[in-house]
Amino acid sequence: QDSSRADSTDGEPLSLITDSPEEGFEVAIQLARKGVTSTQPDKEVLFMLRDVYSKDPDALIASSQVIAIHFQTVAAANNYWRTDSDE
Amino acid sequence: QDSSRADSTDGEPLSLITDSPEEGFEVAIQLARKGVTSTQPDKEVLFMLRDVYSKDPDALIASSQVIAIHFQTVAAANNYWRTDSDE
Amino acid sequence: QDSSRADSTDGEPLSLITDSPEEGFEVAIQLARKGVTSTQPDKEVLFMLRDVYSKDPDALIASSQVIAIHFQTVAAANNYWRTDSDE
Amino acid sequence: QDSSRADSTDGEPLSLITDSPEEGFEVAIQLARKGVTSTQPDKEVLFMLRDVYSKDPDALIASSQVIAIHFQTVAAANNYWRTDSDE
Amino acid sequence: QDSSRADSTDGEPLSLITDSPEEGFEVAIQLARKGVTSTQPDKEVLFMLRDVYSKDPDALIASSQVIAIHFQTVAAANNYWRTDSDE
Amino acid sequence: QDSSRADSTDGEPLSLITDSPEEGFEVAIQLARKGVTSTQPDKEVLFMLRDVYSKDPDALIASSQVIAIHFQTVAAANNYWRTDSDE
Repeated sequence: QDSSRADSTDGEPLSLITDSPEEGFEVAIQLARKGVTSTQPDKEVLFMLRDVYSKDPDALIASSQVIAIHFQTVAAANNYWRTDSDE
Repeated sequence: QDSSRADSTDGEPLSLITDSPEEGFEVAIQLARKGVTSTQPDKEVLFMLRDVYSKDPDALIASSQVIAIHFQTVAAANNYWRTDSDE
Repeated sequence: QDSSRADSTDGEPLSLITDSPEEGFEVAIQLARKGVTSTQPDKEVLFMLRDVYSKDPDALIASSQVIAIHFQTVAAANNYWRTDSDE
Repeated sequence: QDSSRADSTDGEPLSLITDSPEEGFEVAIQLARKGVTSTQPDKEVLFMLRDVYSKDPDALIASSQVIAIHFQTVAAANNYWRTDSDE
Repeated sequence: QDSSRADSTDGEPLSLITDSPEEGFEVAIQLARKGVTSTQPDKEVLFMLRDVYSKDPDALIASSQVIAIHFQTVAAANNYWRTDSDE
Repeated sequence: QDSSRADSTDGEPLSLITDSPEEGFEVAIQLARKGVTSTQPDKEVLFMLRDVYSKDPDALIASSQVIAIHFQTVAAANNYWRTDSDE
């Protein structure tokens, strides 16, 4: 997972509350990458590894799974972005 | 996971709210693929990899698992598509 | 996972609501297989792969895990099949 | 996972409701094995495979994880076996 | 996972209710090991395997994941050990 | 996962309740590492292994997943750090 994106929160404090599922998915991606960079903070190493995992189906599916778990958390945080008509 | 489908939301904004479990499963598949394309946006690479993972039992099971996690999120979002008689 | 079963819903629309945990487990199996066939729809390929994964302990455990995640969803959908005496 | 136990429910219909966490853990084990036998019903094959996975640390940990997911479901079904004093 | 600890509940019946997150984490570890010993009860085999998995990063991470799933269950059981001031 | 951080709770008892998602993510990292050190307490072994897993994409993704599961627990414990305006 490309780590640069994890830091591109343009200084905004981390929040799980978003306006839409699309934004929520972005936060999930950010959190998944934050999990990687917290274990391996060296951007050069991560950049080198990107070439490996971004062409490995198993790693791509495993990354998608980490995003899925975080998206489940963010979706619950936003009450699934239900509108009144959905309730 | 065939990425083309992830973009076939014909321009509709992403939503977790659907009319049926069947539609909900489609959204789960779409989200699982979105997790892959967010890490590897290059469609040609994904198309090449498809030939590998679509014939690998472990990868097929792992893909099904990512869909299962997203389906759990979508099902909760739709209160499990319960009808009044189910409540 | 033997995909034929995923389509044997004898035309009934997909529903998470069942009368018993046993039926709920069947729906979980059906959903797990649906996740496989949505990625690899070719029945011949799936039949060929069945010979591989059905004798591989890791694949059997991984399949059981996908079923477990779907069963968690179906069980919540049915309020864990609690009867009044259980409440 | 030794499949014989999955069928030793002495004819009782499958239920998630139990009197204690210990019994709940037994149901979780039963469900995890049911997920294996639903994919591979041949007891002889399963018995042969047992020799492999029961001495493989990765497979033992993976089995424990499937049980953990089912135990989470069973624990929620039983309101975590809370007594009035716990509420 | 060192199985001896799974039995060190000094005869106390298994309970998910604990006084603190720290104790809750201990129960999660105990449940994760119980999942292993339910599949492989032979302590000698487990002791031999310990030498392998306790030096294998993938196995250590996988064990931590099983504990994480059980801890999620135990934390929910204890309403996340919230005090009145947290509510 | 670098185990030193798991003990750097400067003596404070483990708590899931934090002021922000950022702090919650730190607790999730701490819990994920606690899961590793509970299985392998030997710091020297862990330090040696760090060199391996911190450069292995699969291990980095798997670590991120354990953190994701714990973060889901911590987020629920803190009601997703919703403010009144979010309710």
